[in-house]
Amino acid sequence: MDVDDLVARARDGAPRALARLITLVENASPHLREVMAALNPLAGRAQVIGLTGSPGVGKSTSTGALVTAFRKHGRRVGVLAVDPSSPFTGGALLGDRVRMQDHATDPEVFIRSMASRGHLGGLAWAAPQAIRVLDAAGCDVILVETVGVGQAEVEIASLADSTIVLVAPGMGDSIQAAKAGILEIADIFVVNKADRDGAHQTVRDLRNMIALADRGLDEWRPPIVTTVASRGEGADEVMEALDKHCAWLTGTGTLRKRRLARARDEVEAIAVTALRERMGDLHGDRRLDVLAAKVLDGECDPYSAAEELVSAVTDDGPR
Amino acid sequence: MDVDDLVARARDGAPRALARLITLVENASPHLREVMAALNPLAGRAQVIGLTGSPGVGKSTSTGALVTAFRKHGRRVGVLAVDPSSPFTGGALLGDRVRMQDHATDPEVFIRSMASRGHLGGLAWAAPQAIRVLDAAGCDVILVETVGVGQAEVEIASLADSTIVLVAPGMGDSIQAAKAGILEIADIFVVNKADRDGAHQTVRDLRNMIALADRGLDEWRPPIVTTVASRGEGADEVMEALDKHCAWLTGTGTLRKRRLARARDEVEAIAVTALRERMGDLHGDRRLDVLAAKVLDGECDPYSAAEELVSAVTDDGPR
Repeated sequence: MDVDDLVARARDGAPRALARLITLVENASPHLREVMAALNPLAGRAQVIGLTGSPGVGKSTSTGALVTAFRKHGRRVGVLAVDPSSPFTGGALLGDRVRMQDHATDPEVFIRSMASRGHLGGLAWAAPQAIRVLDAAGCDVILVETVGVGQAEVEIASLADSTIVLVAPGMGDSIQAAKAGILEIADIFVVNKADRDGAHQTVRDLRNMIALADRGLDEWRPPIVTTVASRGEGADEVMEALDKHCAWLTGTGTLRKRRLARARDEVEAIAVTALRERMGDLHGDRRLDVLAAKVLDGECDPYSAAEELVSAVTDDGPR
Repeated sequence: MDVDDLVARARDGAPRALARLITLVENASPHLREVMAALNPLAGRAQVIGLTGSPGVGKSTSTGALVTAFRKHGRRVGVLAVDPSSPFTGGALLGDRVRMQDHATDPEVFIRSMASRGHLGGLAWAAPQAIRVLDAAGCDVILVETVGVGQAEVEIASLADSTIVLVAPGMGDSIQAAKAGILEIADIFVVNKADRDGAHQTVRDLRNMIALADRGLDEWRPPIVTTVASRGEGADEVMEALDKHCAWLTGTGTLRKRRLARARDEVEAIAVTALRERMGDLHGDRRLDVLAAKVLDGECDPYSAAEELVSAVTDDGPR
């Protein structure tokens, strides 16, 4: 593989080169190291936006509407649809991608679904590297869309400069919403399907939740934007809210703090993955399997087993 | 702390001792090692059941109904409500626990919410240890209830012998369901709120999904049980399905395979946590922060940074 050529073409924004590089990330290619070293100095200019919410709130439609809004302003857009929920079904998001066909022929829009399934390092390992690929390729905006509520959502929030949490009317009461921890990760709330019954109530519930959170005066207070993404309504307002948040991030120095935390997480995830691989491979044998069997049979407690594993890895030293 | 005394009381099933031990797990207490060494030989007898589904499907109500069913058969039950979604709001599940009040005075039922928030090792680290506490304390059945769709769901499936996926009518179409990867983790599907409109359609959708999955003849084919948990309807049928699955697991040797994988994950999670702590602490300084800043400023690529970190940890050897 000619990494230099691939990187050069990706820098020019060639969609095939971009797709190829993200496949390298998905497959944890040994070439990645070289690729990231070449791309890293070019990255850091894109605005990274996370977009999350429960199944059925209209994430893909909203992403599509946002892409249209950004394109009207001439910005080059990368979309990364991450599916961390399933370690099995890589193609699960394809159905949604159909809804993004409007942008399929626009050379300034790059859309890609990415699975982090089965991967040792998971989302924390793969997503920042895929973002770097799009960033270095000159995307002004990178939208990272993820399914679901839960740990993945929190991880997405830590990847993005700004996180949009999508909510739809009638998708569960505010207690359920609070439970999912969305308040803590949302920089902007979007109530989609705002033409439906209950939209006002949802906005009210969110407003109360935000008020109760009792943030300090210097803190960002997440705005609530209403949209009907299927008709493109409200996308401009979401973009405005994003720009305001971006200005706040920059003005307060929060942007650098968030990005430092992101780089920290990425470096740690790569290091942990390297160490985990070493644990699995150790002496080409199945030491971890043997230790697990001992724990299961009550011959060894899990801490002693883990200690044996750690000693073996660290005593070996770097290979 | 008198660990021996605490363990002895937990073995007798004393609720306070159990609660105390699970708090030690939550807080990653340094005493845990000793506790787990004492408990490990006593564990391995409980049937571990995972229960998951999107917010609003009735997880807590279903858990309550299942507890009632198990109690009718004289089984001692432990309930662990894990909230992996929020690293921030530990008390978020308290609202639900109100619905479990029926069992609050039953000494043979132990109910506990557990947060894995902010924790280095997360759910993979904490949950197996909490399960071991309940197992060693003589629980015949341990119900692990978790919120949400996503990575946490997959993790729960890997913790449990049998996983119940709860679905409710009108909570999104089958494509959305497939997207969340629930088919791969479900041993038993429960359509709750089966008295509502659309229940038949939901059952049909699930049946089609299962048929399409094209499992081999020797594979387990997840049954679909309908319930109205708020009235206790269907709980006995769920219990029957669980018993059948348990017999299948044992008969095919799958039980040991699943538990071996669980022990493997646990040992690895403890080892990785130890190594991550070492990375963070190294020389009492902020080496990872310095490396992250270099990556952010384009002075160093993330792989070189990670390599420096790994070398530092492994060269130091065990402390």
